[in-house]
Amino acid sequence: MNLLLKEIRHNPMLWLLAFVPVVIAAAKVKPEAHTLLFVLSVLAIVPLAALLSHATESVAAKTGDAAGGLLNATLGNLTELVIALTALRAGEYMLVKASIAGAIVTNTLFMLGASFLLGGLKYHVQEYNRASARMQAGLLFLATVALLIPSAVSQADSSSSFTQTLSLALAVLLIVAYGLGMLFSLKTHRAEFASAEHAEAGETPWPMGLALATLAGVTVLVALVSEIFVESVQEAAEAFGMTPAFVGFIVVALVGGAAEMAAAFSGARKNRLDLSVGIALGSSSQIALFVAPVLVLLSYVIGPAPMDLQFWPGAVVMMLIATLTAAFVTVSGRSAWFVGVLVLMVYLIFAMTLYLLPPRVQ
Amino acid sequence: MNLLLKEIRHNPMLWLLAFVPVVIAAAKVKPEAHTLLFVLSVLAIVPLAALLSHATESVAAKTGDAAGGLLNATLGNLTELVIALTALRAGEYMLVKASIAGAIVTNTLFMLGASFLLGGLKYHVQEYNRASARMQAGLLFLATVALLIPSAVSQADSSSSFTQTLSLALAVLLIVAYGLGMLFSLKTHRAEFASAEHAEAGETPWPMGLALATLAGVTVLVALVSEIFVESVQEAAEAFGMTPAFVGFIVVALVGGAAEMAAAFSGARKNRLDLSVGIALGSSSQIALFVAPVLVLLSYVIGPAPMDLQFWPGAVVMMLIATLTAAFVTVSGRSAWFVGVLVLMVYLIFAMTLYLLPPRVQ
Amino acid sequence: MNLLLKEIRHNPMLWLLAFVPVVIAAAKVKPEAHTLLFVLSVLAIVPLAALLSHATESVAAKTGDAAGGLLNATLGNLTELVIALTALRAGEYMLVKASIAGAIVTNTLFMLGASFLLGGLKYHVQEYNRASARMQAGLLFLATVALLIPSAVSQADSSSSFTQTLSLALAVLLIVAYGLGMLFSLKTHRAEFASAEHAEAGETPWPMGLALATLAGVTVLVALVSEIFVESVQEAAEAFGMTPAFVGFIVVALVGGAAEMAAAFSGARKNRLDLSVGIALGSSSQIALFVAPVLVLLSYVIGPAPMDLQFWPGAVVMMLIATLTAAFVTVSGRSAWFVGVLVLMVYLIFAMTLYLLPPRVQ
Repeated sequence: MNLLLKEIRHNPMLWLLAFVPVVIAAAKVKPEAHTLLFVLSVLAIVPLAALLSHATESVAAKTGDAAGGLLNATLGNLTELVIALTALRAGEYMLVKASIAGAIVTNTLFMLGASFLLGGLKYHVQEYNRASARMQAGLLFLATVALLIPSAVSQADSSSSFTQTLSLALAVLLIVAYGLGMLFSLKTHRAEFASAEHAEAGETPWPMGLALATLAGVTVLVALVSEIFVESVQEAAEAFGMTPAFVGFIVVALVGGAAEMAAAFSGARKNRLDLSVGIALGSSSQIALFVAPVLVLLSYVIGPAPMDLQFWPGAVVMMLIATLTAAFVTVSGRSAWFVGVLVLMVYLIFAMTLYLLPPRVQ
Repeated sequence: MNLLLKEIRHNPMLWLLAFVPVVIAAAKVKPEAHTLLFVLSVLAIVPLAALLSHATESVAAKTGDAAGGLLNATLGNLTELVIALTALRAGEYMLVKASIAGAIVTNTLFMLGASFLLGGLKYHVQEYNRASARMQAGLLFLATVALLIPSAVSQADSSSSFTQTLSLALAVLLIVAYGLGMLFSLKTHRAEFASAEHAEAGETPWPMGLALATLAGVTVLVALVSEIFVESVQEAAEAFGMTPAFVGFIVVALVGGAAEMAAAFSGARKNRLDLSVGIALGSSSQIALFVAPVLVLLSYVIGPAPMDLQFWPGAVVMMLIATLTAAFVTVSGRSAWFVGVLVLMVYLIFAMTLYLLPPRVQ
Repeated sequence: MNLLLKEIRHNPMLWLLAFVPVVIAAAKVKPEAHTLLFVLSVLAIVPLAALLSHATESVAAKTGDAAGGLLNATLGNLTELVIALTALRAGEYMLVKASIAGAIVTNTLFMLGASFLLGGLKYHVQEYNRASARMQAGLLFLATVALLIPSAVSQADSSSSFTQTLSLALAVLLIVAYGLGMLFSLKTHRAEFASAEHAEAGETPWPMGLALATLAGVTVLVALVSEIFVESVQEAAEAFGMTPAFVGFIVVALVGGAAEMAAAFSGARKNRLDLSVGIALGSSSQIALFVAPVLVLLSYVIGPAPMDLQFWPGAVVMMLIATLTAAFVTVSGRSAWFVGVLVLMVYLIFAMTLYLLPPRVQ
């Protein structure tokens, strides 16, 4: 517990934890103050995500690589998962899908691009393990094909039963691919992915008891705050003059990924670009091949109706372009500041388009 | 003749030749038993394709490289060509196009992916000549552009005379590109493609007389059996609960390519991945740049009406994704088992989508 | 002045300058002879473009790299810019956009492909600086995404005010990206782009006075002739049986880029492929990230109404394919004649499609 307090004292981001009780109290007292609740819940989720990510890695560090990898896969994007689950239970499938697609695009473009830029401003040229980058890009490509083909082949909004059965089959296929990918990178071909392994290193792992307790406690808090966030986000967006697409894609994704971004950027500034690329692309492929299909499977249990994998065409195009961009820039295994600018500009084009998009055409 | 019998005795796949007389007899006796005829004709085509492929290579081995290359180009996909010609004569243009697109996708994804996987299960990392892979991927890319642009530019189903004239021009352009590609890889830049050259090596070539006689005899048999196959395939598909798209794309392509797959997989297991990649991508580009355009030209002579190159949009998207996948995975010239899994999963996504696709939306 | 006359005497292309007074006189005497005026204006623009390009480089050579680069960016595609401005003032936005898209596609595919082919016919294998090619391909990719996303996301012809605001924002973003790209290649990472720097070398630069005078005088002449060209091009196209799309895309682009093509091809024949790739891709990205956005900004000042960046979908697909082709063929940094053939064939597919396209579907 002392360790936890010490960590909080040294990490300014964690001071935001003060907003957790504030937002929960505010939701009780003023449930109709959507804009205020939205701002407070964003401020509360960011430090919770950071704690969650640190606790997960501490557990993973103790349990050995295979189990640790599995744990990381399940918990690494826990914030995104909990937010999406809350929206899923509320039947807000549009928001679930927007937050999945947004997380993939934001991690692939914003997290990767900003890492390249921040690293490149300090170092002339940076190198990283391209085997690992290529594999993550390949997994992302597979996931994009899985989301693209159903709508490309059936064209019109085809019979819902076709989409539903296919989505279920694709969800299973993606999870299997993700599992085999972990087997490949953690077991059979470990050596090839060497330097990308000690992701998040540099932070001292917590003892097991503290880590597990944090994990349990923080997950409950994230769930509570997420509920407030999901309930307030639509009205708040309107109040800020933001389109729902922009909120789902950009705001939710930036909030959910704040902790990973901090780790990725700090890696880039320390010339450990392997770390940054691994977090950015690994996080994207985790959401695409694990979080999204798990949500489809869970929708049969907890949702009001089964959720399918049919995304809004604009979202599919953005995921496809993000994947192509990642594949294109990581082909050389080298980076300089302008590579980061290029990747960030692609993200900026998406953000601007979504921001300006008239709500009715979405 | 003794040599032929000895070959048949040693190669279990050729024992299936017994089904050739069976299917021809069955078609005479029970012409309405579509499901039975479909199964029998599939069983009969597989060994005929293997014989055809061996005979072609024996002739090619004798005639020297330039003529041999031309022969291989004309005869290498003879099974696919004869099946397609039978369907063309019957005016079944949908089936012709589905079998062309299916053969390209199946060879590019299934044959290549399974080769990577089978080789990778035995060897940790395999290397191959990427110059050759890149050239085939480039030819495939050109063919995909040729099939994509007319519909992308004209958008709506445009005037049929425009599509017809353009298809004719594109067919000529693709054949010229294919011819120049052979000139490049067999004449001017032979050395760069060295190891991919002795494809199918390992099998002893037959003497010329036997090879030519086999070629002639087997072609007639394939033509006979193909006719039964084409006539029975649609009804059989319905009986099996398969969509026509699935049959045209997946079943016909797997049947037509059985012999080449056997050669590609055996190459991969012997750590001769150059061979496997050469057969898989070479076969795809042959169909795209030679078989398909030749069918368009022949449709003016033997078909009931000219055939165009306008494919079903879903098929174009699949060919495009198959080409991008091939270009992406062959960029490094190295392979491990998971690369094979990734490529096979893309194929599986296509197969699942086509299997589940409600027939009317196609 | 003597120097200028000497240059004209030694360069047969400049003899075409005789057509400049002829076309201006003809336009006065026979303003309705569109076909004649079209042919004469094409013949007059080619040598003017060559003079303009030589003068620009002479000035750039004197002013040092940073200022010279900026100058080159502004004046390098001056011919295209002046033609487009003339069309812009006339409110012919279709022609402006077609000529922008056409110049990008023509420079990327025809200029690059023909350089590879011409160089490859003389040298077995040619190598070039792929860092520079990759950066230009990256800039082109960014521009293509900027043109693609608005229509992909909004799908239907969305509200004009959305398109207009977004176009303005994208125009600014592209110009910033272009400026940062110049900063990167000319300042911070100069060394990496070394050999691509002395583009157009080999020609002796003119003295400053002559260069500036030529620049001023020729720009006026180009503007005069462009006006005749833009006025006559539509009617002339019909008389020649060419579709407006073909004229805008292919004819205008070939005419406007004639001078750069001469320089790129001569570089390739001298085994200086860096020069050719730099001119071809540099010119494309200049038009996409500088000329096109500047035209959008200028349309607010000189056009009858603001111009947006929403292109005809077929044009977007062509630009996307051209960019992918450039990225694909430059990945290795090596070239042989067949690479040129492949790239030219992609261009030929576009040209054939546009030539045959029935006018009403465009």
